[in-house]
Amino acid sequence: MRPGWIAADWGTSRLRVWAMGAEGVLAEARSDEGMGQVPAGGFEAALLRLIGPWLGDGPPVPVVICGMAGARQGWQEAPYRSLPCAPVDPQALVPVPSEDPRIAVRIVPGLAQAKPADVMRGEETQIAGALALLGSFDGVICLPGTHSKWAQVSAGEVVSFRSFLTGELFALLSERSVLRHGLAAEGWDDEAFLAAVSDGMSHPQKLGAKLFGLRAEALLQDLPAATARARLSGLLIGLELVGARSYWLGQPVVLVGEEALAARYGAALAAQGVQARLLPAAASTLGGLAAAMGQLTLASSGAGRKA
Amino acid sequence: MRPGWIAADWGTSRLRVWAMGAEGVLAEARSDEGMGQVPAGGFEAALLRLIGPWLGDGPPVPVVICGMAGARQGWQEAPYRSLPCAPVDPQALVPVPSEDPRIAVRIVPGLAQAKPADVMRGEETQIAGALALLGSFDGVICLPGTHSKWAQVSAGEVVSFRSFLTGELFALLSERSVLRHGLAAEGWDDEAFLAAVSDGMSHPQKLGAKLFGLRAEALLQDLPAATARARLSGLLIGLELVGARSYWLGQPVVLVGEEALAARYGAALAAQGVQARLLPAAASTLGGLAAAMGQLTLASSGAGRKA
Repeated sequence: MRPGWIAADWGTSRLRVWAMGAEGVLAEARSDEGMGQVPAGGFEAALLRLIGPWLGDGPPVPVVICGMAGARQGWQEAPYRSLPCAPVDPQALVPVPSEDPRIAVRIVPGLAQAKPADVMRGEETQIAGALALLGSFDGVICLPGTHSKWAQVSAGEVVSFRSFLTGELFALLSERSVLRHGLAAEGWDDEAFLAAVSDGMSHPQKLGAKLFGLRAEALLQDLPAATARARLSGLLIGLELVGARSYWLGQPVVLVGEEALAARYGAALAAQGVQARLLPAAASTLGGLAAAMGQLTLASSGAGRKA
Repeated sequence: MRPGWIAADWGTSRLRVWAMGAEGVLAEARSDEGMGQVPAGGFEAALLRLIGPWLGDGPPVPVVICGMAGARQGWQEAPYRSLPCAPVDPQALVPVPSEDPRIAVRIVPGLAQAKPADVMRGEETQIAGALALLGSFDGVICLPGTHSKWAQVSAGEVVSFRSFLTGELFALLSERSVLRHGLAAEGWDDEAFLAAVSDGMSHPQKLGAKLFGLRAEALLQDLPAATARARLSGLLIGLELVGARSYWLGQPVVLVGEEALAARYGAALAAQGVQARLLPAAASTLGGLAAAMGQLTLASSGAGRKA
């Protein structure tokens, strides 16, 4: 096997690579050597540990990378592109010098918005992949996650976006705050989640009190830990939804993300009368990397189904 | 020196003790052996390490403790008293058996509110001390901190209260989130703080986006780290103020807390037209412990000035 090119999603906490051929994905691999784990100067070696088996003689294989590898603390900084613009542009990839002559590495730049100040790095690729998967689409793409994004897209360009710290707040509060004592690591309660979404949307100003209330109910009323977890998630997602209302109200909405989380956002939006379409994160990433390679039809063929 | 009694404030992260005589404070000591650091079964030894030098022959010296030492994971659980009630009641202290015959230990119980579910442990003693320092007071006592409290007091009783996770959110976000990269550990910007308070009060639903905005402004616009810190504090205190509006609006407000933090709350309230009176935390704690000992006049004599 000799891939035509290699796609890579290099986030803060993990690295995922695909060997790509004319028909789509030939092979894939992943490691925990995320941007945050790789020491300065160690990026090429970390990449080669995964893709080395795919490389042979011949001209250099193109490698296209999206995500935090392009941050200032990453392999090489890929300066943000400014809105409005297409989510990815094959002409705007940033070349990264490599010592190994078998690869020709380029990084997809993130996007920046001046006012309100906002940035994304990695999600622009998922947006491009979503647009490729959807064909023509004008509307809003929501990417739930550590730093959830809501992006308005029109005529193939990202027009505006806004990030929310929701996922990171959930992680900090569920793992490191006083609430962790009364919160399950697993388990769920759909009814409690939706009630908390509604509560969070109706009373965003009560967030601090509602959060401490989870601790108090655990102490005084034996609040079940799975219910507490669902309520914490619901309060934070509800806060995000009310803050992002101008994005989703009366708009076609597409959710791109990890399946369980995207389904929760979908349920929360459905309770507001918004039927969002869900697209898988990996297929969107891969489709966006193909778009960055200039292979605009790939995402709707084998790769989209396989990822 | 032989104290008439010993006052102790035993929080999660530290232990502070005072040797009390007829005229007030005879001596004081502190350690980092907070409730969270002391292993089960180690509480008496940790206490004796501090107060041992004050003990001699004669009848047992009364020791009155407030704070997390009375939690389920503390020295001995002191079940919450239910609202409405006086903040402390000398008849309601919980005796703790000790091996050392030189001490007679009692713990001040915390307070619980059924609906909305809420708890305090330690702040009830500060409220009692504040009431002793103030003489007669009907109104609202705010105790900023890790879990800020707003308490409505009337005719010497706590009528209702609400806790906010504000301080813990600030600590998590400033020390453990992505925002830590652009935030100063020290430094301040009064103007940015007050603008952020106003912003947080006006747009509580935008909290998640405003938080991520601090990161984006650091990346794109070199937001000064001290300004970012003041804005983070302002956004969170603003969120608390709008959530606690029913407590402070049109009410006499007293702030009890660590000086710098209480001053920030005072400035934020002043911008809302509320002139809050500030009382020092330690004097309030000591006054409340004296009230728990049945020595209601102590706090307004030497101890109040000294602490």
